Amino acid sequence: MQSMALLMFTSLMVSTRWGIISAGKISHDFVTCLRSLRDHEVVVVAAMNVTNARKFALLHKIEKVLDNYDDMAKQDNIDIVYCGSLNPQHYTVVKHLLENGKPVLCEKPLTMCLEHTEELVKIARKNKTFLMEAIWSRFLPVYDELQKRHSEIGEIHSVEASFGLAEIGGVDRVTKPELGGSSLLDIGIYVIHFAQLIFKDVYPSEIRAVGEITPDGVDVQTCISLKYPSGKLASLTTSVLADLPCEATVFGSKGKIKVHKPFWCPDSIEVNGKTETFPYPATIGPCNYVNSSGLRYEAIHVRDCLNNGLAESPILPLEATLNMARIMQSCLDQMGAKLKI
Amino acid sequence: MQSMALLMFTSLMVSTRWGIISAGKISHDFVTCLRSLRDHEVVVVAAMNVTNARKFALLHKIEKVLDNYDDMAKQDNIDIVYCGSLNPQHYTVVKHLLENGKPVLCEKPLTMCLEHTEELVKIARKNKTFLMEAIWSRFLPVYDELQKRHSEIGEIHSVEASFGLAEIGGVDRVTKPELGGSSLLDIGIYVIHFAQLIFKDVYPSEIRAVGEITPDGVDVQTCISLKYPSGKLASLTTSVLADLPCEATVFGSKGKIKVHKPFWCPDSIEVNGKTETFPYPATIGPCNYVNSSGLRYEAIHVRDCLNNGLAESPILPLEATLNMARIMQSCLDQMGAKLKI
Repeated sequence: MQSMALLMFTSLMVSTRWGIISAGKISHDFVTCLRSLRDHEVVVVAAMNVTNARKFALLHKIEKVLDNYDDMAKQDNIDIVYCGSLNPQHYTVVKHLLENGKPVLCEKPLTMCLEHTEELVKIARKNKTFLMEAIWSRFLPVYDELQKRHSEIGEIHSVEASFGLAEIGGVDRVTKPELGGSSLLDIGIYVIHFAQLIFKDVYPSEIRAVGEITPDGVDVQTCISLKYPSGKLASLTTSVLADLPCEATVFGSKGKIKVHKPFWCPDSIEVNGKTETFPYPATIGPCNYVNSSGLRYEAIHVRDCLNNGLAESPILPLEATLNMARIMQSCLDQMGAKLKI
Repeated sequence: MQSMALLMFTSLMVSTRWGIISAGKISHDFVTCLRSLRDHEVVVVAAMNVTNARKFALLHKIEKVLDNYDDMAKQDNIDIVYCGSLNPQHYTVVKHLLENGKPVLCEKPLTMCLEHTEELVKIARKNKTFLMEAIWSRFLPVYDELQKRHSEIGEIHSVEASFGLAEIGGVDRVTKPELGGSSLLDIGIYVIHFAQLIFKDVYPSEIRAVGEITPDGVDVQTCISLKYPSGKLASLTTSVLADLPCEATVFGSKGKIKVHKPFWCPDSIEVNGKTETFPYPATIGPCNYVNSSGLRYEAIHVRDCLNNGLAESPILPLEATLNMARIMQSCLDQMGAKLKI
């Protein structure tokens, strides 16, 4: 018993050692969060452009730099890899890591199509290697509160969520096919995740989508309707052409819960008109995106999973990721999007 | 020339004489509005329940009472009939009136299915008899303003509208199949009308709907997505189970126009954050429904149409009614609603 206690104590004290794929903006924010925490250590960063990797390493005091993604799988002194590369690169990068037994936390969307997501999940399960899609919203304290307050609005009947920012229309990653352009995959996953969270990750019985598709085949705005086996509904919209409310609301028989803008990382929720706020912790340095310091919560959860020897998160299981990928694929097919995968 | 001027003057001075079908709540509000106007006269009311008809006639100082709807077609001293009966009765009542050459203003929805609406339109056109669906929203001054302000929000990309009131779940007319139950036909027509108004009554290129259907076959909540040939989108929701925002918003490249609750008869609109209010005129007596005094505007428009010898409204033409009926029929079919028609 004594040695067990010692082992647990030791494991709690040992830092989780991270390898980072890509030196882009979201990697910057994620690493800033890791460095703002105890128990986390960033030991290596890989970028295709080695100058960027070196700058990133210098800024974040990371010892080792790799000029390619493949070598990350060979690193012995890492516990997990965070993949923050462009969306179309996720599949190849994560596959290589999983095949080499490296645990992975990968930015959303896990891949660009259902087939690839299914394949990665299969490998992770077969190799018993940890894999999680980085849907950070689910790990925010404000989202915990959201889920605890359901009973106050009676029976839940429907959900509405919108993610629309005209400024994103100018972001190449979202609109250029060769960079993985798709507003649904890039921002739409948040509205779909919201509905799935409220309806307990159950797969919808009906999925209906319409979207505006550019001549390049990229979806730039979408309207999605989901029906759940219980008869409950979700109305979801995205746009990179116009500013939508960027709120999410749960409608019940006795009232509503409104998740304020930006609903994917809100500061507050309103339960039947009463607002409660949830400030974000400070980080050691500035971040690129709004409320990015909330990325820390998914990192803390991943450390917990690893320390408990889990190959899958109990909070965001792979089945939840598969269901979101299935929904998105159905929507893309219905809309006639022609993505470069 | 002198005689022509005299004729015009006379025609302007002569009141429009109305026959009223049904002595229910909406007929009460409509007649209250007519009585609050000059140039309108209510000469006869028909109700299946003659006691109700007599009470109605007494209250509204109407000379003649009919104990059935059929006899309305025989009345010589009326210029137009307002049909405020239950939804499933519209088809038979209006058909009989049109076949007898009586002009009709009929409450929405014109009928319970596309086939019936098509038939009524065909008869009206063949007989050159005036027919208009009473979508009163379109004639409100606040809606005129809405349409004038489009240019201030740049290119219009999408529309969102919701109509959801839990209290309606208790209204038999909406939920009982034998009374014409269907939330889409009863309140959903308003969200569809809003999208159609903004997109100039063009028929959508894609229509997608999901809905919760009771064991009786009645739709009690719906999510509808429309795509227009231009690529523009509409996200529409209705519910008789939960209170939705009951607002409508037009999203453009340079901002948004929000039509406040209740968007089907609002007091105000907000153009890029700036609110403008439009008070409703007083009526001679109390009304049943919110802002019902706005019903006067459609009555004034109908009088104008009749005085100008028009068989169809140029503001709400029959093609607009047909398109709304086509959209609703597609939604009902997709949702699997089984209405009693």
